[in-house]
Amino acid sequence: MRHLLSAADLSLTDVGSILDLAEEMADVQHRSIKKLPALRGRTVVNLFFEDSTRTRSSFEIAGKWLSADVINISAKGSSVSKGESLRDTVLTVAAMGVDALVIRHAASGAPQQVTGWIDAQVINAGDGMHEHPTQALLDSFTLRKHFGADSGVDAFAGRRIAIVGDITHSRVARSNVILLKKLGATPILVAPPTLLPSGVDSWGCEVSHDLDQVITGVDAVMMLRVQRERMSGGYFPTPREYTVGYGLTRDRVAALKPGTAICHPGPMNRGLEISADAADAANSLILDQVAAGVAVRMSVLYHLLGGEGES
Amino acid sequence: MRHLLSAADLSLTDVGSILDLAEEMADVQHRSIKKLPALRGRTVVNLFFEDSTRTRSSFEIAGKWLSADVINISAKGSSVSKGESLRDTVLTVAAMGVDALVIRHAASGAPQQVTGWIDAQVINAGDGMHEHPTQALLDSFTLRKHFGADSGVDAFAGRRIAIVGDITHSRVARSNVILLKKLGATPILVAPPTLLPSGVDSWGCEVSHDLDQVITGVDAVMMLRVQRERMSGGYFPTPREYTVGYGLTRDRVAALKPGTAICHPGPMNRGLEISADAADAANSLILDQVAAGVAVRMSVLYHLLGGEGES
Amino acid sequence: MRHLLSAADLSLTDVGSILDLAEEMADVQHRSIKKLPALRGRTVVNLFFEDSTRTRSSFEIAGKWLSADVINISAKGSSVSKGESLRDTVLTVAAMGVDALVIRHAASGAPQQVTGWIDAQVINAGDGMHEHPTQALLDSFTLRKHFGADSGVDAFAGRRIAIVGDITHSRVARSNVILLKKLGATPILVAPPTLLPSGVDSWGCEVSHDLDQVITGVDAVMMLRVQRERMSGGYFPTPREYTVGYGLTRDRVAALKPGTAICHPGPMNRGLEISADAADAANSLILDQVAAGVAVRMSVLYHLLGGEGES
Repeated sequence: MRHLLSAADLSLTDVGSILDLAEEMADVQHRSIKKLPALRGRTVVNLFFEDSTRTRSSFEIAGKWLSADVINISAKGSSVSKGESLRDTVLTVAAMGVDALVIRHAASGAPQQVTGWIDAQVINAGDGMHEHPTQALLDSFTLRKHFGADSGVDAFAGRRIAIVGDITHSRVARSNVILLKKLGATPILVAPPTLLPSGVDSWGCEVSHDLDQVITGVDAVMMLRVQRERMSGGYFPTPREYTVGYGLTRDRVAALKPGTAICHPGPMNRGLEISADAADAANSLILDQVAAGVAVRMSVLYHLLGGEGES
Repeated sequence: MRHLLSAADLSLTDVGSILDLAEEMADVQHRSIKKLPALRGRTVVNLFFEDSTRTRSSFEIAGKWLSADVINISAKGSSVSKGESLRDTVLTVAAMGVDALVIRHAASGAPQQVTGWIDAQVINAGDGMHEHPTQALLDSFTLRKHFGADSGVDAFAGRRIAIVGDITHSRVARSNVILLKKLGATPILVAPPTLLPSGVDSWGCEVSHDLDQVITGVDAVMMLRVQRERMSGGYFPTPREYTVGYGLTRDRVAALKPGTAICHPGPMNRGLEISADAADAANSLILDQVAAGVAVRMSVLYHLLGGEGES
Repeated sequence: MRHLLSAADLSLTDVGSILDLAEEMADVQHRSIKKLPALRGRTVVNLFFEDSTRTRSSFEIAGKWLSADVINISAKGSSVSKGESLRDTVLTVAAMGVDALVIRHAASGAPQQVTGWIDAQVINAGDGMHEHPTQALLDSFTLRKHFGADSGVDAFAGRRIAIVGDITHSRVARSNVILLKKLGATPILVAPPTLLPSGVDSWGCEVSHDLDQVITGVDAVMMLRVQRERMSGGYFPTPREYTVGYGLTRDRVAALKPGTAICHPGPMNRGLEISADAADAANSLILDQVAAGVAVRMSVLYHLLGGEGES
């Protein structure tokens, strides 16, 4: 594996290999001494053109537990604000001698472009409305464990998983659809018509506008975060309408089959797309997802940088 | 010791143990190679909802010298600004697998609340108008050394220590009053009537509005920082009135008994609550306080995280 | 060497020693495991009163590859914004026990002043319109390699190097003039009359207002970054006039002697002071400069902190 740009690039073997190593990393995570020498002398740069404390911290901890040097660069206060192009910024960072670049950028496809410019390994930590592959991997890691830890990828066979919310703008949805289908699960997109992308037919997914109907027959519900700043646009329901139509309310939690997993990538808008009853339910995996994030990112960093003399 | 939330929670034995180990840490601090392996593989997160370069850096250095991994998260650019609750933010950070959370927050009691939500150890690095226990510990460390390094807690017996300024809003004052009384010293609160909290009688402290009268009979003066943003409120004197009534001016420095310690938690408003003559006096311990900050925080981190298999 | 404040302070032996060690550090930089134990237990603080992602990251990586602890403090969110003086800020940081302070400050001479206040070693990472010595060192490192890697300082004998742009406000120009002359090269200042400092005669440099004339007879052109915020002042040409008169356009690249080095300290304003043709030319050394930055800063940190029991 050379880069991690998209869930679409991953073979089923890649996914299995990443998730299996992540299991081992999760064991490290639960030790009191969390430190492996694997990436000693390797340098990882978190280059974030959009804020994300959660994803940045997760990669930073993952890198440090593997003994890598981790450098954080945020676009605020960076050369970017001095008018430098993405290409020049990235060439500069790479020229310093870094081994991996973890990039978050508002433009879909930015990390892919970057791989054409530099030799360092590139990890997409979220690009525009395109993909967020480590999020999908950590979601699959979490669900695989929930569905049956030792059953490997078969854990997903026949599983129906609702993805609920603003599908159009969600890189989390896009990456999860790709990965879940690859693993044999059946994703069901649940959204108001105005929040479904125009080309959604080509995704090969079931689509529904009726959360109440879907919810009784799924093995997991993945709630998407509502970006409040988008709510002003005409195509978006009001917050109240949204909650009524697509929020995971107390009543909907009660309607779930026993054992249905509840997921959310965070940060949550409690009371909007997810109720406190849902977020804090016994079958809520939301904090498991956070924990999985570190383990999966350790695994990804190790896959990209861990080989002897690979880079 | 499970957490460090308040000076009030500390037994005299705890305090002695923290200050004694801090002595050893101060020795490390003066070596050219400042590094102990004690907390290798442990992860400390500085979670700061209010800016404080000084306290954050002090904890960061303390953690790194003990070989811990230290992650800085500031509320700016964090999920907090995306509307996430304190509880969700803290649960998220904890779920990543961190061992200790150093929290600064504008709300009194926030760190205490946090301990109810997570398993990680919590250190209060300043909460609203409540407490700032590591500041009080470093102040006591500094004064203990000044009063007589080898005399232990008896160093404080009979010592009179003036705490001067905006007592109402000062977590530094609150933590120091508690700790100094515990150690056997006599704190004297010196402030204009409008800057004393309504329940001050229950603190069991001498109170004065006359700095000139107090100053000739104390072993130490602790000046509090004036928060300029509070000066607009009607209950606060003007800057000039403040300096005349409660500033540690050149004349007041001259009136001190020889050897009276001068302390300030920083950052100083020179010319307002403290004159250059006071700040730079031979018996000013202000930079000793800063140095003690690192040693005391190393000691606190070690006390919380250093035990074999404790967490 | 006690501090690195100015290229003017460096003897030819110092320069040779820094550049030679930087060669060894550049070898480390090209290994897959980039880590030397040299500065383990030493603490370097990046104290930046002006933003500079590039310089800050370069020092941070250099420090970490030498196993030092590196602490970043930016003036935003620091005590500085609370009205603390430079002296108090620096005394505070030093009192924590740091070994070296890397300072960037808008005031010329600030790092020099700082050395009078503290014991820690001080590195000037850019002060106002004064100097930026590590930039000059990395430029010389890059050019020395380009002119002939093994020829040592003689690489510069007889070399003519154009420095083009806003000489008045450029600390990069100032440091380079000093260092290049020391190494035996001939710097030629090329600028509109309004962007030359009044005392430029005393610099002992050739001066020209005609880039086209100069460009055909030099071994290197160093383009200076245009600070767009200065362009509003009356003495500055318009962007278009600037490009026509002093930009390294495609035509001017074509007019260079074969092998003439093209340098720029970054971040570049492509299309203003430098064309894409120039920036991406085969003899552009701009990314070599970035790489050299880390190697040279490793060398400088080692020179200042690496000695046994030196501090």
